[in-house]
Amino acid sequence: MITAQANGLRELGTRIFHAQGAPKKKAAFVAETLVEGNLTGHDSHGVQYYVTYSDRIREGFIDVKAEPRTEKETPTTALVDGRWAFGQITAMRAMETAVAKAREGMVAAVGAYNCNHIGRLGYYNTWAASQGMIGMMFVNVGNPNVAGYNIQGRAFGTNPVSVSTPTGRETPFLMDYATSIVAHGKVSVARAKHERIPTGWVRDKYGRVTEDPNVMWDGGWLLPFGEYKGYGLQMVSELLGAALTGSRLGLEESRRPPSPNGVFIVAVNPEAFVGLDAFEERAGRLVSWVKGLQPEAGKTVLVPGEPEAISKEKRLREGIPIPEDTWAAIVKLCGELGLDPGIALKK
Amino acid sequence: MITAQANGLRELGTRIFHAQGAPKKKAAFVAETLVEGNLTGHDSHGVQYYVTYSDRIREGFIDVKAEPRTEKETPTTALVDGRWAFGQITAMRAMETAVAKAREGMVAAVGAYNCNHIGRLGYYNTWAASQGMIGMMFVNVGNPNVAGYNIQGRAFGTNPVSVSTPTGRETPFLMDYATSIVAHGKVSVARAKHERIPTGWVRDKYGRVTEDPNVMWDGGWLLPFGEYKGYGLQMVSELLGAALTGSRLGLEESRRPPSPNGVFIVAVNPEAFVGLDAFEERAGRLVSWVKGLQPEAGKTVLVPGEPEAISKEKRLREGIPIPEDTWAAIVKLCGELGLDPGIALKK
Repeated sequence: MITAQANGLRELGTRIFHAQGAPKKKAAFVAETLVEGNLTGHDSHGVQYYVTYSDRIREGFIDVKAEPRTEKETPTTALVDGRWAFGQITAMRAMETAVAKAREGMVAAVGAYNCNHIGRLGYYNTWAASQGMIGMMFVNVGNPNVAGYNIQGRAFGTNPVSVSTPTGRETPFLMDYATSIVAHGKVSVARAKHERIPTGWVRDKYGRVTEDPNVMWDGGWLLPFGEYKGYGLQMVSELLGAALTGSRLGLEESRRPPSPNGVFIVAVNPEAFVGLDAFEERAGRLVSWVKGLQPEAGKTVLVPGEPEAISKEKRLREGIPIPEDTWAAIVKLCGELGLDPGIALKK
Repeated sequence: MITAQANGLRELGTRIFHAQGAPKKKAAFVAETLVEGNLTGHDSHGVQYYVTYSDRIREGFIDVKAEPRTEKETPTTALVDGRWAFGQITAMRAMETAVAKAREGMVAAVGAYNCNHIGRLGYYNTWAASQGMIGMMFVNVGNPNVAGYNIQGRAFGTNPVSVSTPTGRETPFLMDYATSIVAHGKVSVARAKHERIPTGWVRDKYGRVTEDPNVMWDGGWLLPFGEYKGYGLQMVSELLGAALTGSRLGLEESRRPPSPNGVFIVAVNPEAFVGLDAFEERAGRLVSWVKGLQPEAGKTVLVPGEPEAISKEKRLREGIPIPEDTWAAIVKLCGELGLDPGIALKK
């Protein structure tokens, strides 16, 4: 395991994408969201994408200069064509649009299509919460590798969902997860670390139970979380993220680009209800109460969003652990681009 | 098991609530929603509430004549004071308001507080879908009987969530479930039928594993579904349904009324995105595709909403099975009100 530093990793990522033609501001934003993935403990959504996205840039899937464009708009809604820009650029534009519209119109809904991989939903939703809004995201991932309930084989993408709200505290409430039992990236991380995975995570291409993460690269599939309940949310992300926005549906072949995302956002302004101040007071009180409840023996009660805040505080202090394989791939990429990866390791 | 008929049960329910002072139209609507619970196979949300609601009317919790009142309003939002009317009356008013506002404003959010038990969320959401809208509901149940993730003891209500969309077919997509591993009503049904329940459903008051549904009436609790993922949704229903609307929060003592609901609704108009026609075509295509996927050995692939449609078709044809204990309680209630329960059994 290598220990890298957040600032250096951000700078390195900015240089990596800039060296491939991305304007500095876009490059910096994409790097920032990926480093935030590592900081918050979601290594599945971290800097290994420096390499993946660079592959996609080279293969023509990510247009590093593209600007998303609003194709259809009302005072409370927008439908955004991502034009195959970095997914992060499109997702942030969509969330900014939703928050601005909800500020005036009290509630807003924004969809986006032609999006590359947008990374961790929590990034955009916690930003909405920092603006005093409630953010909701439903994202279709057009790269089926998850079974549905009672389904044999790959049916859906990891189709994540997320809700974030202000709490009047530094740490917002943040629900943010794949509707698969784990994010695909977590299987990638286990593979990179040469670790076994729990038996409930994946099936091999014959539907057999296994602890081997490698089966996911040989026709295997992830299981949905929570049986038919998780399956319901899988389909909601498919319906809102894809059917409603015009993104690739589960049934449509799309090997190019490798991971198209269809994004659907709702932003709600608490001022239309009890008001932001009262909402923050009430949400904060709820959080305090939950944190004070008795834990099961040997467990700790954490509120959604807290694990991310705890990890971020620790990793800003102690650095970000990067698996050897991931680091080697970044070093190789830097070699090709004539960049010094060492800046990511300096304190 | 008694076999009753939907029409007769509706007529009986109307008479039961009307005999207790409810205007005929309100009485008929509440009965209609409860019979629809049984028809769709959700006996946990069915006509046993004829008795429960009658108790609550007698105890002064349900005001049979009350009209909900909109307290705060914008072109796209409303906050509704349910004034302790039948929860169904308030929930339907809130959904009608959301759909009407989304028709004009493309997206709408409506909250409701001072609500009695609203019954099955799917009733309101499938109505929204029948109007060409996407309906989303997050409901706080102010009657804690479910643990949270890693939490020992009762923390949250069954806090259900639901999303429904049109599909261009007779059967809409319908996700509709408690964030507990099962609805509390399903434990009640097992108790009424004197059946054991799976070990993953409840814990007794000491936190011990059990198959006995009766522990829920002796300090036991339900488990959340899907570990920390279900726990996230439990809290979303608490934050949106209660903290945002001004309803009773999890932390506030409220034995009166026994089951206050806090309701939060979002309605989205597909016309602001790909358009209703295209959305229905795409959603219908998705449904066909999913139904055609290979099932696991011995399983059937059903799309959320299909089990309800299958049950309804069968029960309209064959009648609605009612457990003896439930029927005996209804017969006793009819005796007190001077009504003939026999009308529910006639073909």
